[in-house]
Amino acid sequence: MAKLSKTVQLSHGGGGKEMNLLIKKIFFKAFDNPILQSEEDAAALHFNGPTAFTTDSFTVAPLFFAGGDIGKLAVAGTVNDLAMMGAQPEYLSCSFIIEEGFPVDDLTTIVNSMASELEKSGAKVVCGDTKVVPKGCADGLFINTSGVGHIKTQGISVKSLAKDDAIIVSRDVGRHGAAILMAREGLTLESDLTSDCATLWPAMDALMQAGIPIHAARDATRGGLSAVLNEWVQASNVGISVHEKHIPVCDEVKGLCELYGFEPYDLANEGTFILAVPKDVAEKALEIIQQFDFSANAAIVGDVDEERRGKVVLVTPWGSSRYLDVPQGELLPRIC
Amino acid sequence: MAKLSKTVQLSHGGGGKEMNLLIKKIFFKAFDNPILQSEEDAAALHFNGPTAFTTDSFTVAPLFFAGGDIGKLAVAGTVNDLAMMGAQPEYLSCSFIIEEGFPVDDLTTIVNSMASELEKSGAKVVCGDTKVVPKGCADGLFINTSGVGHIKTQGISVKSLAKDDAIIVSRDVGRHGAAILMAREGLTLESDLTSDCATLWPAMDALMQAGIPIHAARDATRGGLSAVLNEWVQASNVGISVHEKHIPVCDEVKGLCELYGFEPYDLANEGTFILAVPKDVAEKALEIIQQFDFSANAAIVGDVDEERRGKVVLVTPWGSSRYLDVPQGELLPRIC
Repeated sequence: MAKLSKTVQLSHGGGGKEMNLLIKKIFFKAFDNPILQSEEDAAALHFNGPTAFTTDSFTVAPLFFAGGDIGKLAVAGTVNDLAMMGAQPEYLSCSFIIEEGFPVDDLTTIVNSMASELEKSGAKVVCGDTKVVPKGCADGLFINTSGVGHIKTQGISVKSLAKDDAIIVSRDVGRHGAAILMAREGLTLESDLTSDCATLWPAMDALMQAGIPIHAARDATRGGLSAVLNEWVQASNVGISVHEKHIPVCDEVKGLCELYGFEPYDLANEGTFILAVPKDVAEKALEIIQQFDFSANAAIVGDVDEERRGKVVLVTPWGSSRYLDVPQGELLPRIC
Repeated sequence: MAKLSKTVQLSHGGGGKEMNLLIKKIFFKAFDNPILQSEEDAAALHFNGPTAFTTDSFTVAPLFFAGGDIGKLAVAGTVNDLAMMGAQPEYLSCSFIIEEGFPVDDLTTIVNSMASELEKSGAKVVCGDTKVVPKGCADGLFINTSGVGHIKTQGISVKSLAKDDAIIVSRDVGRHGAAILMAREGLTLESDLTSDCATLWPAMDALMQAGIPIHAARDATRGGLSAVLNEWVQASNVGISVHEKHIPVCDEVKGLCELYGFEPYDLANEGTFILAVPKDVAEKALEIIQQFDFSANAAIVGDVDEERRGKVVLVTPWGSSRYLDVPQGELLPRIC
């Protein structure tokens, strides 16, 4: 088989010999499985019953950051969207838009990072697409991952929150946003701050297997904790109160937020989920979640009420309270 | 509800208030359906049995061309990948990467064009994603569409070609490539040349309903007729002979090919499919295909043999013959 050039050329997206070479040497090698190898126009799968379907495009800059890269992010992001619906992440599609001249070594690193993140959930890449655009028409690399999987527990929904549900946050918030900010601004804070980027399926799977009746679950990506809680109060027509002193935020994120005037609750996460469960199972749910490295510092941060419907109330450590709103404007473009 | 600005801003991809506004005013309005409106992390669907799954990213330039636009192309392209597997196109995801400053009017036109193309197959957009990147980081607009659907007839495959199958081409080839070339070069040939861009499901559905035993089907996109036939001879370990005089090519495409030194068989199509069926049902299949406007000039162009396995032989009108190879290099970047 011919050798790949050191950089991606327009011909690698042309549908001919060079594209076949790129696909086989990089994508098929990393994602090897019989469905992908069948090389049909579409992957032939088999489902019985309720199935979840989701999509995400990733444009993060820089492509490599503390705690991950665009490949890990693309797999974790789509797997997490399925997991939050109670669906086992089974099959992913993977579509690349590559800028002419992109280093083949970097592409290989990113694709291998995707393959290793897939192992965390057992999902497989079963179909894909490759486009190459001329230099200057895209910034390096964009990845779309879509995903499908069986829904194991039905009814987990933004509309299912109920009075007296406890709100659980799976770990300290704001790490992904802060890590990208740090990478982009070239900050060297002598800090160990890394993105939270992670596959959350193992925790959701454990919760379902333990029979925890999950009302709502969502990973707090763009818009952070604030966006999720506000979406929930709107969709379920309830109120939520959260206690600032219970919401974990690490010192590095606090420091960056003070420096830039951000709220940690508005910053994006890529491996942090929010859960609404009935109060009486909240402690049990917390114990299950805390078994996993990526959610060892999970905490119960608040509860659902029917008083200020449509509103999220943040109670400060001094006992005063204010509304936590949906973020406005653009804090950080190309966060994911 | 607030008003949308005239151009897309970074905040429209931020996960907050502005993004909600863009999604509701443009995407939800055009793609309106209860699954999409549920606004969960993933769409909840229901499948029983064999299901096809496919993905495609679209980076075509220019975004608007004779016979279509990137929106029509994105829907038809993904629907066609499902259709060629014998799968009813049911659910599509839709993910936009938008350059800051992109005109909201153009976005609306493109999204409406997607909605109207969806009607041709009855497929629905059930989940989506929106990313906005700073000016200069992408060229206008890229769209990813992934799709899922029930497989109605199993076994249609690149591996299923058999000796004496007839090869049918659904219409004159090379139109999409030629139309993009014309648009890009600003050619005004006083011609009516339009892209073939079309949803092919109705023809595949009719063939299956008539009980035609389809061995292989593929839409001849990047790499054109040459790429499809070469993929087939490799995957099925057969030979294919096609007769140049039977392959329909319109005069405008012939003219452009002469001007630029292209082969019409290498040019991309976006609404043209190639079919392999047993010889004894070929005429019946042809009649069914010719009933549709988008494939009225379908033709039987060749047959499958076991002589020169792995090779596609093109017989010229003068009786000589040559191998038709997989295209090499990049004819036209950003064709789809």
